[in-house]
Amino acid sequence: MNDPKQVIILRTDIGMSKGKIIAQACHASLNASKKASDEAISDWESEGSKKIAVENDDESLHQKLETAKTLQIPAALISDAGHTELEPGTQTALAIGPAESSKIDQITGDLKLIK
Amino acid sequence: MNDPKQVIILRTDIGMSKGKIIAQACHASLNASKKASDEAISDWESEGSKKIAVENDDESLHQKLETAKTLQIPAALISDAGHTELEPGTQTALAIGPAESSKIDQITGDLKLIK
Repeated sequence: MNDPKQVIILRTDIGMSKGKIIAQACHASLNASKKASDEAISDWESEGSKKIAVENDDESLHQKLETAKTLQIPAALISDAGHTELEPGTQTALAIGPAESSKIDQITGDLKLIK
Repeated sequence: MNDPKQVIILRTDIGMSKGKIIAQACHASLNASKKASDEAISDWESEGSKKIAVENDDESLHQKLETAKTLQIPAALISDAGHTELEPGTQTALAIGPAESSKIDQITGDLKLIK
């Protein structure tokens, strides 16, 4: 696989705390990784397990998940259980990959890096 | 396992960007999870895969890793490759668990939640 990465998309429009964002990102990253093939994981790890955090300011995570499925890229969408900061079922994070950067960029290429 | 969780400790004294912190947290979370037993993972997932982000403002991550090893808790320490923001080898994040909260709290109980 060429230039493997995982992109983690975080909702920035729902007022999550920094700690909450980190936990949701880790949920998504871990769950998407579990859906990847052993070969994809191996390729990714051999190139440093690149992970990129980007922001999404609306509810379009579900559409991006569907696009990832169509492109046969592993992906995991996280909905919050609502125990603390958010309404139950709020979509908070979507991890896409590991997969080839060029494939993932078809979905996330227009999203801004979290600075 | 009673009340399983994973605690992700992030260095807050080295000026990482938010995006960088998220990526380092995911590296640590994933790597520590890979070191856990199938039973620990199963227990953790059945209770919602609780993840907590806390801050550490000095270089003591290595000592906490050693304590986790002594307590036989899965843990992963991340050092940055130094391609972007940091000096190569800078310790950035340490994930501890999944394990029983009471065991992990022996190591991380005095650290502040990231808000």
